[in-house]
Amino acid sequence: MFPKTVEKWDIFEFAAPGRQEGNPFVDYDIKGVFQSPNETVTADGFYDGDGVYKVRFMPSFEGDYTFTVSGSFSDEVYTGTFTVTPAAAGNHGPVRVANTFHFAYEDGTPYYPVGTTCYVWTHQPQELQQKTLDELRKGYFNKIRFCVFPKHYDFNFRDPITFPYEGTPCDNSGLTKYNFNDYLPSNPENKWDFHRFNPEHFRLFENRIRDLRDMGVEADLIIMHPYDRWGFSEMDEECDDLYWKYVIARFAAYRNVWWSLANEWEFLKKKTVRDWERYADLLCKKDPYHHLRSIHNAYSLYDYSRPWITHCCVQLQEFQPLEKIPQWRELYQKPIVVDELRYEGNIEHDWGNITGQEMVRRFWEITLRGAYAGHGETFVHPDNLLWWSHGVELHGESPERLKFLHKILCESPYTGLNPSQKEYRTAVSAPTFGPNDYRILYFGNARPAYKRFYFDDTNEYEVEIIDTWGMTIEKAGVFKGRFEVTLPGREFMALRIRRVG
Amino acid sequence: MFPKTVEKWDIFEFAAPGRQEGNPFVDYDIKGVFQSPNETVTADGFYDGDGVYKVRFMPSFEGDYTFTVSGSFSDEVYTGTFTVTPAAAGNHGPVRVANTFHFAYEDGTPYYPVGTTCYVWTHQPQELQQKTLDELRKGYFNKIRFCVFPKHYDFNFRDPITFPYEGTPCDNSGLTKYNFNDYLPSNPENKWDFHRFNPEHFRLFENRIRDLRDMGVEADLIIMHPYDRWGFSEMDEECDDLYWKYVIARFAAYRNVWWSLANEWEFLKKKTVRDWERYADLLCKKDPYHHLRSIHNAYSLYDYSRPWITHCCVQLQEFQPLEKIPQWRELYQKPIVVDELRYEGNIEHDWGNITGQEMVRRFWEITLRGAYAGHGETFVHPDNLLWWSHGVELHGESPERLKFLHKILCESPYTGLNPSQKEYRTAVSAPTFGPNDYRILYFGNARPAYKRFYFDDTNEYEVEIIDTWGMTIEKAGVFKGRFEVTLPGREFMALRIRRVG
Repeated sequence: MFPKTVEKWDIFEFAAPGRQEGNPFVDYDIKGVFQSPNETVTADGFYDGDGVYKVRFMPSFEGDYTFTVSGSFSDEVYTGTFTVTPAAAGNHGPVRVANTFHFAYEDGTPYYPVGTTCYVWTHQPQELQQKTLDELRKGYFNKIRFCVFPKHYDFNFRDPITFPYEGTPCDNSGLTKYNFNDYLPSNPENKWDFHRFNPEHFRLFENRIRDLRDMGVEADLIIMHPYDRWGFSEMDEECDDLYWKYVIARFAAYRNVWWSLANEWEFLKKKTVRDWERYADLLCKKDPYHHLRSIHNAYSLYDYSRPWITHCCVQLQEFQPLEKIPQWRELYQKPIVVDELRYEGNIEHDWGNITGQEMVRRFWEITLRGAYAGHGETFVHPDNLLWWSHGVELHGESPERLKFLHKILCESPYTGLNPSQKEYRTAVSAPTFGPNDYRILYFGNARPAYKRFYFDDTNEYEVEIIDTWGMTIEKAGVFKGRFEVTLPGREFMALRIRRVG
Repeated sequence: MFPKTVEKWDIFEFAAPGRQEGNPFVDYDIKGVFQSPNETVTADGFYDGDGVYKVRFMPSFEGDYTFTVSGSFSDEVYTGTFTVTPAAAGNHGPVRVANTFHFAYEDGTPYYPVGTTCYVWTHQPQELQQKTLDELRKGYFNKIRFCVFPKHYDFNFRDPITFPYEGTPCDNSGLTKYNFNDYLPSNPENKWDFHRFNPEHFRLFENRIRDLRDMGVEADLIIMHPYDRWGFSEMDEECDDLYWKYVIARFAAYRNVWWSLANEWEFLKKKTVRDWERYADLLCKKDPYHHLRSIHNAYSLYDYSRPWITHCCVQLQEFQPLEKIPQWRELYQKPIVVDELRYEGNIEHDWGNITGQEMVRRFWEITLRGAYAGHGETFVHPDNLLWWSHGVELHGESPERLKFLHKILCESPYTGLNPSQKEYRTAVSAPTFGPNDYRILYFGNARPAYKRFYFDDTNEYEVEIIDTWGMTIEKAGVFKGRFEVTLPGREFMALRIRRVG
């Protein structure tokens, strides 16, 4: 009931039968202790249905481990040994904060997030999920945000393929328009047992986390959200905590998991800041791997200075424009990920109808300010299948340009770009390189006919003209002393300037 | 030496010979008192050179006036009578604040500013000035900002055709690049007598104020500015006050004059807030007509809550984006005029290379937030003639679209548009009409495929689709109850919705 070898940063899973009397989800506990010369990790297990209990563990070191699994689930105490083999190609470990404002995998490889959002793609019929995976395999994105709970919102009134709890949902017929004030999570038609999870829901969800992991995509999991007609957003404290513990026990061992406590946290009417802090506390205590943790706003930023928050996961608004990024960096001293900057599309909603050009422009503007951005897409669709909610298929013009931006980011000599303190529209990759050694200028909507430079009299600088929309990189030449670069007079151009001698 | 009749809001000018001994600019005074049953106005006069003193007066009422002119300039006291005739067509009087955030001429006609900036067009050779006037006659703009003093800045190192003082300037040869830190207003080569004005400089300038007035264009005069190599920005208090009094005495009687105390006030290194307040005090005391008064920032807004400031004359910056307009309206309760939002063009400077589309988009975004905007243009030119500085010729794509916006504004039922408190991207013309009676939605970069509306069950609403770039207005139909409007899926579209029954 456990493997003899496991790859570093992969999942070691122990499974054993256990008690079924009463309610196995709450009446019994199970935990594992995993030891090697380099680490001792205690991890909670969980009940996976059908009389089976499991404990999962993600080893962070190669070599031999011993383990002990025990708890009230069984009279038996299980012990054993296994060996952790080196990480295979493409397995770089979990993503961590690096260089204050940036990210790197645990093996040190820089990670430049270019994310997307498909809130409930894992709750769609399996053939649609496979289409989403096909689209993701094209490599546009290396992070995706999605929800554990199903979603009740415009374009998305069908029931999910599975529910997270035992029970039956309220009627969904006749729903055509989401109204923030008339949804009824407490609809008495909902018949749920919040003390009994539906393991199938979580197993199917985990299949997708694994698929993402295998294609190198981070799973930015939204654990709670307000778009609800079933009551999942309004459970009491005990049930909330039960849910959090179950989620952590099941998902924490996946190396590609990020925790997003909520989407639009202020819109969960029954939750207070004390609740969010309690969930965070559980997460800090129960996730042995300390995956990245954040919480996503609608209008009001959460207090990102809270020590449990590893990075800011921001939604832009009229009064939270991307121009604030340098202030946020200064204030929070953490990476800034703008995970909602509005969506490429043409739906009615104000947040869902920007052009591909505007999407790409915002990505670049955000990047040049030393932050990261996330994509989303909302085109009117005859079957109401919108990428932002369902996944399935991309229709926009931005994804390949975002892939191009990612390629540029990967060429930064030092992890990440930081905005120049001195020059507007300039980011540098520092500090191991001198401030003049690598810089990118981005002009956005502007289209200067030329730019003049002077760094010093002795070094040579290679200048490339990047068309961020056309996805071309053209060499402008190698220059010394005072020089002028002619630009093509179009929008969305960038310059990359590298010291070459 | 004075006319027997004058049009209402036109200039009555009295001229008489006077003393020439010593320095007539400072040794003698002259003032006029103008009386009718409706007003008594005291106005300072000025020395116009060649032994001639003048006093100017702008009457605000029709009918018979008497006047007395006296002062140490002459032993004689002059008295007389004249008649003020009705304002001719197109003469609506000076512009005043109306409806808190908007403007109207003194006769009540709404005035919707669509301004431009040509800092030193009046300091160019006369044939270039005539070209500028030809361009302005096309009616794109109804306000223009320009400077009394000449300007020392990139693209603009030639000496002006006249100087405001007697004396000789420093050498201008070899200047190619403006450097904020190495310009030398105190260059000892400058030989000026700051106590002796050059009346010719002011007369030529006044010709242009008059030309603008006759074509219905407001002259937004920038009295001080920092782009200087002659020392005009660094005179002492006595000479500053002399200058201000001379300027007020000469220009205040022109009905189309607005006072802009400074361009980029913080960049005048030798002036303090006490200085600006002293000039403002002079202006309030000496301008009998209380023309509009403001002061223009670079990075730091002046305190627009000061009571002498009639409207906010704002330059946008990274941290002063147009999204702040509703805050400024709330805070200052005055009209907001964004007189610099960056320029249409392609020069190197970050503020001088946006596209025509971006210029027009910003105008509309600003308008929808209940404020007004100003145009400027900076295209690379073989003879370094850039509209923003020299005037001469327009090359951009925005002016005709701004004229189109002005036409839309003129169709507001009540003076001006105000941002909807409830709906993003919506402005209403209220309050004499109900809030649903006239609204404009503008989508900017967004391009929704449709929009749904519901105002009430009984009234009919006419909907028009405005292409703000294509300059077309297309009727979408007349609707009642719940309705949906299909949009063309392009950027830069607006909707105008009017209750029609």
